[in-house]
Amino acid sequence: MKQSEQKIPTLKETPKDADNISSTLLLRGGFIDKLSSGVYTFLPLGYRVLQKIENIVREEMNAIEAQELLMPALHLRDYWSKTGRWDLDVMFKTRGADNKEYGFGWTHEEIITPIAKRYIDSYRDLPLYLYQIQTKFRNEVRAKSGLLRTREFSMKDLYSFHVDQEDLDNYYNRVRDAYFNIYKRLGMGDQTVLTYSSGGDFSKYSHEFQTITESGEDQIYFCKECNIAVNKEIIEDQKVCPECGKDNFEVKKAIEVGNIFKLGTRFSKAFNLTYLDDKGKSQEVIMGCYGFGPSRTMGAVVEITHDEKGIIWPESISPFRVHLLSIGESDKVKKQADKIYSDLIKKGIEVLYDDREESAGIKFAEADLIGIPYRVVVSEKTIGKSSVGLKKRGEKDEVLVKVSDLEKKIKS
Amino acid sequence: MKQSEQKIPTLKETPKDADNISSTLLLRGGFIDKLSSGVYTFLPLGYRVLQKIENIVREEMNAIEAQELLMPALHLRDYWSKTGRWDLDVMFKTRGADNKEYGFGWTHEEIITPIAKRYIDSYRDLPLYLYQIQTKFRNEVRAKSGLLRTREFSMKDLYSFHVDQEDLDNYYNRVRDAYFNIYKRLGMGDQTVLTYSSGGDFSKYSHEFQTITESGEDQIYFCKECNIAVNKEIIEDQKVCPECGKDNFEVKKAIEVGNIFKLGTRFSKAFNLTYLDDKGKSQEVIMGCYGFGPSRTMGAVVEITHDEKGIIWPESISPFRVHLLSIGESDKVKKQADKIYSDLIKKGIEVLYDDREESAGIKFAEADLIGIPYRVVVSEKTIGKSSVGLKKRGEKDEVLVKVSDLEKKIKS
Repeated sequence: MKQSEQKIPTLKETPKDADNISSTLLLRGGFIDKLSSGVYTFLPLGYRVLQKIENIVREEMNAIEAQELLMPALHLRDYWSKTGRWDLDVMFKTRGADNKEYGFGWTHEEIITPIAKRYIDSYRDLPLYLYQIQTKFRNEVRAKSGLLRTREFSMKDLYSFHVDQEDLDNYYNRVRDAYFNIYKRLGMGDQTVLTYSSGGDFSKYSHEFQTITESGEDQIYFCKECNIAVNKEIIEDQKVCPECGKDNFEVKKAIEVGNIFKLGTRFSKAFNLTYLDDKGKSQEVIMGCYGFGPSRTMGAVVEITHDEKGIIWPESISPFRVHLLSIGESDKVKKQADKIYSDLIKKGIEVLYDDREESAGIKFAEADLIGIPYRVVVSEKTIGKSSVGLKKRGEKDEVLVKVSDLEKKIKS
Repeated sequence: MKQSEQKIPTLKETPKDADNISSTLLLRGGFIDKLSSGVYTFLPLGYRVLQKIENIVREEMNAIEAQELLMPALHLRDYWSKTGRWDLDVMFKTRGADNKEYGFGWTHEEIITPIAKRYIDSYRDLPLYLYQIQTKFRNEVRAKSGLLRTREFSMKDLYSFHVDQEDLDNYYNRVRDAYFNIYKRLGMGDQTVLTYSSGGDFSKYSHEFQTITESGEDQIYFCKECNIAVNKEIIEDQKVCPECGKDNFEVKKAIEVGNIFKLGTRFSKAFNLTYLDDKGKSQEVIMGCYGFGPSRTMGAVVEITHDEKGIIWPESISPFRVHLLSIGESDKVKKQADKIYSDLIKKGIEVLYDDREESAGIKFAEADLIGIPYRVVVSEKTIGKSSVGLKKRGEKDEVLVKVSDLEKKIKS
C-alpha cells in the first residue's frame, strides 16, 4: 500500500481524551478513530491488525475441532427471561416495530443453548464445539482506556457441550492450551499468566488470562512457587494458592485478556437441554464457555509493546511486514524504491510504502509511531552502495544491506 | 470436514414458517437457524458460504482501490440529528447507562462523513474510497422471505469522496463494473440487470442491481432494446427507457441485490465536509455510496439455483467443493473413502465427507439437499473397478471415474 494513496494520516497531537498509552498511540498512528466514548472505528491500518488477531484465534479454535458459526446480536427478550439475566443493566435494550422487546447480545449462552438443543438428541451428537467471532455490545456506565473497555467490541466466544464432567474437563484443558498458543503467537506469551478466579455456582474455579503490565487495572497475586496467579476474589476467600497451598505471592497489575469457564448445567437446566445416554436415559448436557476479545487484546498488545516513540508490533499481527521509506526527491531514489516495492509485493511480502514528498524527519518519526517490524530506507546514500538501510523496530541501529540480500533479511 | 464430527444435521421437515424456497432449503440443509422473525444464525455450513461471498466482494472492492475499515453499529443520536434522519422508524434506538441516546446503524453515511472530515483537508487527500463489511440492523415492521428481508444482516457499504462530479462519475462506473464482476463470480451474472431508479435530490438516477426470478418481490421493466431495466418509480414518472427513449419493455419479477447512488453534496453539506482546491479555495466534497448485501445475496442465489431436491451451489461459494459419500458398512469401503478424503484434503480441496452409518438413500438425498457441486461415491461396486462414482450436482448421470483421475476431474 502506497501512503500517497492510503491518505489516512497520523495525528501530530495526542487526542485530549485518550486516557492510556494504547489509545494514545492507536489514535495517533491512524489505527482507530473515536466515534463516541467507548465506540471506535477500526481504520484501514487498524482493521488489518484486528483481522490478523482474529485469524490467529480462528486457526487455534479450528485446531481444537471447534466449528465456526455466526449468531445474531439482536435477541428476543424471551431467551433472556429463561435465565433471569434480562434485567441485568449491561444489556442495551429496545422495542421493535413489531412491538417486541429485544436486547443486544453481550454474551451468547442464552442463544447457543437453544440452538444446540435443536441439534442434540443423543450421546452420539456430543461432544459439540461451536464458536463465533462477533460484535458484542455492553451498556457500560463509563467506557475508558481506549479499546480496553468499550461499549462495542469484537469477541470470540466458544461454547462446548459434553456428556459428562470428565469430557468437559479434558476439553477445558485443551482450550486452555490453545489460548496459550494464541498469546504466544501474539507476542504476549511471556507476560500472560493463568489466573484462578471464582467458578460461580457450578464449579470451584474458572480461569482468567491476565497480561502483566504496570498499566493494568486488575490486581493479581502471582504465586512464586507455581507459574500461575490468583485473582483478588479468590485471595480474599481462601488466602492460599490453589495449586501449592502456600501464600508466597507477588502482587502485580494486569489486564484480563481472556477467560474460560465451566458452566456445568447452569444453562442446560434453564433451556432443558438434555441427551439420551447409551441406555436411553435422559441426561443433562454439561457445558463450558470460553471468551477472548480480539479488539481488547489489540489494546493490551500495545500496552506491553511500545516505546516513547510509538508502537512495536509483533510480526504476527503487524499491519504490514515492511515499512519502505524513500528519502529525498531524486528520480533515482524514487525509481529504486518503486522497484523494491513491486519486487517485495510480488514475493507476497506486505509493504507499506511511504512514497510521499515529506522530510526524512517526518517519515522516520511516523515509521516509529506506526511500529512496523522492518523499516527499509532508500536514499541517495544507500543507492550509491546498491544497498538499503534496514532497521528493526525496537532496535537501535540501522544497517546497510545489499538490495539483493533484503528479502532474506526480512524473512529470517 | 467429517459429517460424523460436524453433527449439525439436515431437517427432514420443512419448517412451518419458511415462506419462500431459499429459506426452506437453507433451513432444511442446516445452513441457517432461525432465532426469531428476521433474525438468523449462520450455522457452520452457512457461514462458510457467507464468508466466501464476503471474500469475493472484498477482492472486487480492493481491486478498485477501496480500503477496508470497520465502523461501529452503535451511533450517538447527534450524528443522525445533523441530517434529520434520526426520526426514521427504520432505526432501532436505545438509551444508554450514560443517559445518552443511541441508534443501531442501518447505513453509515452519517458516520463515514464526519470520519472522512477528520482526514480530508485538501484536494491532495482526494479521491478517497472506504468500505466495510459489517452487520446492520433494520427495525422492520414485518420481516419475511428468509434472508431476503431481515432485521439483522451482513452489508458491504462503500463510500467514495471526490473533488468534482466528473471524478465521481468515473468512479461510479468502475464500481458498477466491479458489481457485475461480483455477480458473475457468484453465478448470478446472466440473471442480474442494471436497473434505473430514482436518484433523489442530487442526481437524476441511481441504479439497482436486480436478479430476475419468478419469486422476486420487485417488478422491473426490462428494456428489450437495451440490456438494462427500469424500476416502477421511474416508469411511472417518465414512461420510456432512459437509454433508448423507447417504451419496448417486458415486465419481470426480480430481487434487488445491490444499489449504487450518487450522493452529491447531500452529506458533505450536513457535516460541512469541504476541501481546499489547488487555488486554496474551499469546495464541497462530492460523494457516492454503494451497497451490497452478502446475506441477502446468499438467499437470492438459492432462489435462482435449486431444483426440487435441493440447492445447487455455484462452485465459487459452495461450502465445500466435494461431497464424499461412503456407501455400505464394509471396512474396505471405509478405508478407501478415508484415503480419498485425506488425499483430497492434502491437495487443498475442500471436502465434506459423509462417513456416517446411514443408508445410501439418506446420504444421496442429503447430498442433493446440501447441493455441493461434486458428489463422489465410494461403494463395493466402485471399489471393484478402482473407481468412484462422480456426479455433478444439477446433472443427471453418475459416471465411473478411476480414483487416479479424480483430482483432475473435479478441478476442471
